[in-house]
Amino acid sequence: TAGASANQELLRLQRDPNQWVMPTGNYANWRYSELNQINRDTVKNLRPSWQFSTGVLRGHEGGPLVIGDVMYVHTPFPNRVFALDLNNPGRALWRYEPSQDPSVIGVMCCDTVNRGPAYADGKIILSQADTTLVALDAKTGKELWKVRNGDPAKGETSTMAPMVFGDKVLVGISGGEYGVRGHVTAYNLRDGSQAWRAYSVGTDEDIKFDPQKTTHMGRPVGANSSISSWQGDQWKLGGGTTWGWFSYDPDLNLVYYGSGNPGTWNPTQRPGDNKWSMTIFARDANTGQARWVYQMTPHDEWDYDGVNEMILVDNLTVRGQRVAKALVHFDRNGFAYTINRENGQLLVAEKFDPAVNWASHVDMETGRPQVVREFSTRAGGEDKNVQNICPAALGTKDQQPAAFSPKTGMFYVPTNHVCMDYEPFRVSYTAGQPYVGATLSMYPPKGSDNLGNFIAWDAAAGKIVWSKPERFSVWSGALATAGDIVFYGTLEGHLKAVDKRDGKELFSYRTPSGIIGNVNTFSHRGKQYVAVLSGVGGWAGIGMAAGLTNDSEGLGAVGAYKSLSDYTQLGGVLTVFALPD
Amino acid sequence: TAGASANQELLRLQRDPNQWVMPTGNYANWRYSELNQINRDTVKNLRPSWQFSTGVLRGHEGGPLVIGDVMYVHTPFPNRVFALDLNNPGRALWRYEPSQDPSVIGVMCCDTVNRGPAYADGKIILSQADTTLVALDAKTGKELWKVRNGDPAKGETSTMAPMVFGDKVLVGISGGEYGVRGHVTAYNLRDGSQAWRAYSVGTDEDIKFDPQKTTHMGRPVGANSSISSWQGDQWKLGGGTTWGWFSYDPDLNLVYYGSGNPGTWNPTQRPGDNKWSMTIFARDANTGQARWVYQMTPHDEWDYDGVNEMILVDNLTVRGQRVAKALVHFDRNGFAYTINRENGQLLVAEKFDPAVNWASHVDMETGRPQVVREFSTRAGGEDKNVQNICPAALGTKDQQPAAFSPKTGMFYVPTNHVCMDYEPFRVSYTAGQPYVGATLSMYPPKGSDNLGNFIAWDAAAGKIVWSKPERFSVWSGALATAGDIVFYGTLEGHLKAVDKRDGKELFSYRTPSGIIGNVNTFSHRGKQYVAVLSGVGGWAGIGMAAGLTNDSEGLGAVGAYKSLSDYTQLGGVLTVFALPD
Ligand SMILES: O=C(O)c1cc(C(=O)O)c2c(n1)C(=O)C(=O)c1cc(C(=O)O)[nH]c1-2
Ligand SMILES: O=C(O)c1cc(C(=O)O)c2c(n1)C(=O)C(=O)c1cc(C(=O)O)[nH]c1-2
Repeated sequence: TAGASANQELLRLQRDPNQWVMPTGNYANWRYSELNQINRDTVKNLRPSWQFSTGVLRGHEGGPLVIGDVMYVHTPFPNRVFALDLNNPGRALWRYEPSQDPSVIGVMCCDTVNRGPAYADGKIILSQADTTLVALDAKTGKELWKVRNGDPAKGETSTMAPMVFGDKVLVGISGGEYGVRGHVTAYNLRDGSQAWRAYSVGTDEDIKFDPQKTTHMGRPVGANSSISSWQGDQWKLGGGTTWGWFSYDPDLNLVYYGSGNPGTWNPTQRPGDNKWSMTIFARDANTGQARWVYQMTPHDEWDYDGVNEMILVDNLTVRGQRVAKALVHFDRNGFAYTINRENGQLLVAEKFDPAVNWASHVDMETGRPQVVREFSTRAGGEDKNVQNICPAALGTKDQQPAAFSPKTGMFYVPTNHVCMDYEPFRVSYTAGQPYVGATLSMYPPKGSDNLGNFIAWDAAAGKIVWSKPERFSVWSGALATAGDIVFYGTLEGHLKAVDKRDGKELFSYRTPSGIIGNVNTFSHRGKQYVAVLSGVGGWAGIGMAAGLTNDSEGLGAVGAYKSLSDYTQLGGVLTVFALPD
Repeated sequence: TAGASANQELLRLQRDPNQWVMPTGNYANWRYSELNQINRDTVKNLRPSWQFSTGVLRGHEGGPLVIGDVMYVHTPFPNRVFALDLNNPGRALWRYEPSQDPSVIGVMCCDTVNRGPAYADGKIILSQADTTLVALDAKTGKELWKVRNGDPAKGETSTMAPMVFGDKVLVGISGGEYGVRGHVTAYNLRDGSQAWRAYSVGTDEDIKFDPQKTTHMGRPVGANSSISSWQGDQWKLGGGTTWGWFSYDPDLNLVYYGSGNPGTWNPTQRPGDNKWSMTIFARDANTGQARWVYQMTPHDEWDYDGVNEMILVDNLTVRGQRVAKALVHFDRNGFAYTINRENGQLLVAEKFDPAVNWASHVDMETGRPQVVREFSTRAGGEDKNVQNICPAALGTKDQQPAAFSPKTGMFYVPTNHVCMDYEPFRVSYTAGQPYVGATLSMYPPKGSDNLGNFIAWDAAAGKIVWSKPERFSVWSGALATAGDIVFYGTLEGHLKAVDKRDGKELFSYRTPSGIIGNVNTFSHRGKQYVAVLSGVGGWAGIGMAAGLTNDSEGLGAVGAYKSLSDYTQLGGVLTVFALPD
């Protein structure tokens, strides 16, 4: 009953524009708000209202939750949580800092980020870097329960935002660069006991597939769909980690998410489709049973993790066909997918950056990308440096979430505009050691000097509506509002608001540090606020965050973003914006 | 000739309100600006214009310099310097970070602060924590010369802002809690070679006293004035460090500053007046020769370092007597002194917080404070805990500088309102180890719940004009402007502007972290800006800065400021404020 009421409470709160009750804005991952005090006309007057330094330097992803009069702010490792009193801005009602073995820092691939806690039933639920899932009393900050979801000694870590459905909290795992076999695990909200766990790769039982009922491209997957796509026991180090976002459709009772790269970045070492890495999953929220899957990048050769958010929208009309329930996904691989989320039917798969060159297109019958041989890192075998692949490993979009406006029906997408050289080499597995097997370097596409674009996307047509270039990748999550504007942050540190119609910049403010957090909005005592965490880092900012200086360090990202330190320095600060009184 | 022109340039620049060319605002330490776009009427519209995170967590004292189109921002250890392009806010033209042995952190008494670099002759001159004085090319950030001013292995460190006079740069030394014998040293601006050094305690030669010509209270000091006031060789560990501010009178060619506490806080261990600790010095800028001195707290029993800034004002009328050249000093010991700066004549010595109880008054004939026996930490001998002494060791005011408005003739003073228990104990000296010998605890005066006040002071009358209570000590430096307002920051993080007439709050903005920096102002392309570093720390914030939690840690400061962490967290951010366009 606690569960049932938590479910009801969350269903209600995620629709209340005064609050920001889950990191994704709502269960559908819209990152959209009905608030419109701050709008196309007034946004030019927007200004910082108050700020809060978190006392932590490395990359600040995610954003604060707002429930009633309290704002919950989290940080990267050491994963502090602050409950701030909105009636007394900046005053902490309580503070929480878990004690964690700092050795976990060494096995986090892409900075010590955390994408935020979940709220439900009077609890704040945090997935710590060391994979401890802890529930805190939202009123006092006291620990109610905690449970260990993985083992950092094996390279298992956590950066993702858990999500609560009904009486369960769902959490994934990071460690694709350490041979970790990904899974999602549901814990009972009441006491942290495990409800179910589903792996991304493994036996049908492990992955909770029904060979007859679970479908891929409309057909049953058949028995042993995962392990038969790997050589020997390789699936045991198969990757497919689950460090991205969850979405949830309460009517279908399905949860959606994607899996990451297969174990080792050297494709020659792992023949086969490597199922179900790089896959969108639709699972029953109660049991974990998979309804349908879609593998976007079979046999990955580029590290195009499929974990980016699934945005759930209703009543799309695709080539004349009305789709009641759709799912839109901007993949690392540079294709934006529109899918029927009831059955996994592939409707649209189009490039959302014209620079994408590794595949010519997606075959709509088989769902397979048509790989361009020149950019295959398998074709030439190991130790061959394949050049000018677009996008780079960090994709046309990485974890930074897009926003959807039901008013325009458009998607507003923070993107990367980066290409790479990729040289695979043979590696052997040691628990807790990097299992990467490729040397990368990254740079803008030929003829470009911008590393990012902020775009508007038509998911029915599969077309870019407008595109606004940015010097660096847009590594922050977007926010669309009923004020006819869209917000996002830049790696240099600007919070920007643009016109939804054409991307025209209406507002820009230079926050203390680069923004890789996700913009949100709420209202308090009748006034609309916009909040964002600045604090540069993440994979794009790994050079500064981890103090790396060689171009190919940080899994190849250091070189491309080297000049970022001319624009910004580390430091976590929450900025809350408002219009003047 | 470089020197002569540097002198001319600085004399000119310190009068140019568009720039902020020295940490003290001008040679007279006024921290006053003629700019008045931001004024009593408009200040309510002030708002952050842009911000810059420094990437450093601990206490950020001092403030940025502005010379032409460039702003120079410094940080605490590791003592980074950024040259920011005002035409492209936040863009760094160059960055500098010295390589320093981090072991210096362990011997800095009161956080790893730095009060800012000096500018002269196209050079930025920085006194690093490890006492290296380095001159950088202001255009490129390249090192031009560097010299070692002390030895951290003996507890010698640096936090203070050097000052340039003529062709020399003057610098002091920290380490009063390590038995360091204080000195000021002038280096030649051209190449860093040493011009002169004058100790605070020692032989007449070491302290550059002329027994016949150097005066105290109008009389020649006589031979061996310092060493004869110590027992045996104790003067060699005599303290009197010089970590505060310098002022300079170009007409008299005199430099003014104060010396700190005598070696060991246990007074029983060092009988005598312990000259010239706790002393104001007036020295010839060319030779270092002392013109006059005034010891405020002979035989200190409370750690009332005399290093606070000397503010130079002209044409005061004190009890009917016109004083052409005065010096005003708000001492740690709770007395505000008005002195004739030509000859050291004591004009006024009055309490600037009514809570001050350790002395009844200052005898105007002898210049000596009349100690109240109950609050003597010597009278009861060692190991006696003397209670309810006001002010606490951190004084009625510490390093946080006051501002002077020539428009009002008033001083605007950030103060502490803190008392203490003080229990002296016997210590022995080991180089590089604390030489403290007292256990302290601090708390607000009985009947008060505020730890600070921001006051206006009439230095001719020796009276508080108005006083505005603050929850915590005001540890930030003030700024007065021709806009008839005064700025200061709070430890909770608010930048405030108050009406010069009555202290009424006209503006308040919550910056990311507690403010211990000094507010300044400048104009760029015709627009006035106000800038301040936030980033809590310093002695008051040492609990958070150094991660200390026991009340008596941090030389007794941790307990009093414990609740500060409910209001703010660490993190260095520069905020630049402006009116809307
Ligand atoms: O394979 C994994 O388990 C894993 C984990 C993470 C993570 O947890 O942050 C990232 C990635 N991969 C990754 O491929 C990636 O591009 C990435 C970017 C970021 C980030 O926060 O900026 N994290 C991660
Ligand atoms: O005796 C010394 O050498 C010395 C040095 C310093 C310093 O260098 O910051 C401080 C003090 N003493 C001191 O007594 C004191 O109250 C103090 C406060 C602060 C500060 O920055 O908040 N520094 C210092």
